[in-house]
Amino acid sequence: MFVADNLNVNSEGHLTIGGLDAVDLASQYGTPLYVMDENLIRDNCRKYVGSIRKFYNGNGLALYASKAFCCKAMCKIAFEEGMGLDVVSGGELFTAMSVDFPAERIVFHGNNKTRAELTSALEYGVHRIVVDNLTELNTLNELAGQMGKKADIMFRIKPGVDAHTHDFVKTGQIDSKFGFAIETGEAFEAIKAAISMPNINLRCLHCHIGSQIFELDPFDLAARIMLSLISKVKLELGYEIKELNLGGGFGIKYLSEDRAIEYEKYMETIAGVVHSECERLDIAVPRIFLEPGRSIVASSGVTLYTVGAVKVIPNIRTYVSIDGGMTDNPRYALYKSQYSACIANKADQPFSEAVTVAGKCCESGDLIGEGMPMQKADPGDILAVFATGAYNYSMSSNYNRIPRPPVVMLKDGQSRIVIKRESYEDIIRNDLI
Amino acid sequence: MFVADNLNVNSEGHLTIGGLDAVDLASQYGTPLYVMDENLIRDNCRKYVGSIRKFYNGNGLALYASKAFCCKAMCKIAFEEGMGLDVVSGGELFTAMSVDFPAERIVFHGNNKTRAELTSALEYGVHRIVVDNLTELNTLNELAGQMGKKADIMFRIKPGVDAHTHDFVKTGQIDSKFGFAIETGEAFEAIKAAISMPNINLRCLHCHIGSQIFELDPFDLAARIMLSLISKVKLELGYEIKELNLGGGFGIKYLSEDRAIEYEKYMETIAGVVHSECERLDIAVPRIFLEPGRSIVASSGVTLYTVGAVKVIPNIRTYVSIDGGMTDNPRYALYKSQYSACIANKADQPFSEAVTVAGKCCESGDLIGEGMPMQKADPGDILAVFATGAYNYSMSSNYNRIPRPPVVMLKDGQSRIVIKRESYEDIIRNDLI
Repeated sequence: MFVADNLNVNSEGHLTIGGLDAVDLASQYGTPLYVMDENLIRDNCRKYVGSIRKFYNGNGLALYASKAFCCKAMCKIAFEEGMGLDVVSGGELFTAMSVDFPAERIVFHGNNKTRAELTSALEYGVHRIVVDNLTELNTLNELAGQMGKKADIMFRIKPGVDAHTHDFVKTGQIDSKFGFAIETGEAFEAIKAAISMPNINLRCLHCHIGSQIFELDPFDLAARIMLSLISKVKLELGYEIKELNLGGGFGIKYLSEDRAIEYEKYMETIAGVVHSECERLDIAVPRIFLEPGRSIVASSGVTLYTVGAVKVIPNIRTYVSIDGGMTDNPRYALYKSQYSACIANKADQPFSEAVTVAGKCCESGDLIGEGMPMQKADPGDILAVFATGAYNYSMSSNYNRIPRPPVVMLKDGQSRIVIKRESYEDIIRNDLI
Repeated sequence: MFVADNLNVNSEGHLTIGGLDAVDLASQYGTPLYVMDENLIRDNCRKYVGSIRKFYNGNGLALYASKAFCCKAMCKIAFEEGMGLDVVSGGELFTAMSVDFPAERIVFHGNNKTRAELTSALEYGVHRIVVDNLTELNTLNELAGQMGKKADIMFRIKPGVDAHTHDFVKTGQIDSKFGFAIETGEAFEAIKAAISMPNINLRCLHCHIGSQIFELDPFDLAARIMLSLISKVKLELGYEIKELNLGGGFGIKYLSEDRAIEYEKYMETIAGVVHSECERLDIAVPRIFLEPGRSIVASSGVTLYTVGAVKVIPNIRTYVSIDGGMTDNPRYALYKSQYSACIANKADQPFSEAVTVAGKCCESGDLIGEGMPMQKADPGDILAVFATGAYNYSMSSNYNRIPRPPVVMLKDGQSRIVIKRESYEDIIRNDLI
């Protein structure tokens, strides 16, 4: 029934998350409330870290893509589990720095990093800066020169692989704001330019073919294309690129019918491709980077809300209003992303209706889902939405000046706050007259 | 060429906003930067306040719908111009209270106000609480009773008018999370219930038929329907409802081809309908509330960005990357809302291409617009997006942990910060370990 293994029902008929009663959590911390299960997050980290060890003999690094959910506590967890960190902005880098995340495990992404961001990255000495375009390459060469440094970079490459996923999150194809295209010769020219630059060390090529992908084939194809490019660079330019970043994009289970990729199978398959292709192309097996984000945190998250009004519109639909909405989870409003849910205090009862879950914003589009199977909801019920650990807190807003909910992390039967609930004072903190 | 009268080009060929050089503003305050023209905002306030005076003999109140753009300074401006305030959450009410906005000019909206919010509203003594559903009516009656108060309310009614606008912002039809339907008898039953409740004063009926509406007919029809209901209540229940809230939804000019409603014409037409219908129905002309939000602030706003990379993908499109994006303006990502723009430092040059303006988030859907007519953009240019005064700052997020831009208000040739730029320290303020 549930989309994650850590969800269950206790003898009171209440939903449990990592063994803790969801209704108790709602009562202790108030709603809306983001709950995340640290044990599940750590398990997911270990899958990636372990398979780098197993299939690449440890010659690689699994980077947590922190845009999925970034805060001090999460950076610390990723660090403790031996992961690196993929940051995409000065703010994410600042968060990493605030917990002394080692620079040699940080990779800095982004299609339009500012000079200030590039400077911070160079100052902190991040492991690799992912260069997206020629303007950035030139800026970085100039900034590194001014600082008497050499910038260790990877290039973001568009492998031309078009993974079957939502339009918004396709990134491998040529029509993308990200990276250099292979087929136009743009990528090869950029590599040539980088090699000749005094303050640039080209270390790695990167690709990311999309998000929430459920098939192995696109990953397989992308790996082959990237290795071909590395081989071409070796043959034609005599330059060895010894690292390959295969990005992220591994699909997770939002609905019970979703079939997530088994990471072990993914890693084994792709590692097989990498090894055989390297042998065929006569190149050394590169150091491998992976960038899981959603698949580390999404399933670990549950958002708890209190039901307010329940509005039955005969022959049309039933609106169940909650005390949160698009402010804490804008993914339905943005992409029509589907979630599964239940009434936490009636979790032992069967689903008896299909409802629209409406947020409290003054906006008709403020919905969490439509046609969601649900137990009969009454005012005061606790409604739990599953798999909200990725891109919920991180995309949240203060629309309608609604404060953002706190994030409570569960570990071994204990709970603690890792992000405090915003106060009204927080909301007006930067207002002047 | 421009969508607002306060935009122009100076002798240096730079865009001016309210007479101030946009390039200078960008250089003084940094980018991304929200700029708002206080003179224009005040002019818009005066149009509504003035027409209440002119067409209703002053028997009414124009409420600024603060969800469009809420901060201390904006509340103060609305107050000084003689407007009331429509708030939709505890956070907006808190903002109003922080500048001592008089309670007797505040109306509190929302489809799912919490008990805490209703309690605050009663404690502060807000003028009218807009009751959305029976659950809320009962809660309010109970809370008011506990506090020894009587709650002055209006009911949110669905008049069944389906204004021609974007799906997301239709609200008058029966399939809405907001309000009570007339055609099912729900509204009439709620009115009956409210009249009999000891701690409720039913003062007013409210309708809001949608957003960004360009025709007069839907407003005309909604006014007739609402007055009929008031008449029916008088005839059948012997109860006089002496106030009518006609909501907002007045369209504004985002593109040069958009034709905004002339408010004067709207007010005159609707006032004519109200007066003649009241005479026909033999009811007193009610006190009129209006709730303009977007039409008060949208046109006054311009967002300034610095151009980073410009990526020409032959035969496909040109991506112009900016240092902001969906974090400060999510309306293209959410609704494909269209904006017009120009290169502020090349404002005297003609548009020579159509480009995609891409934000800096690690997300393919982070675009501000596609096919936007533009001067040829180069790295370092200042890009200005127009009519961003409504639902931009208010819907902004910290996705990718990107700090929100400051809001600079212009008045009579001077500029001042009314919302400070968020710092990285702000971003991690609530993070614990």
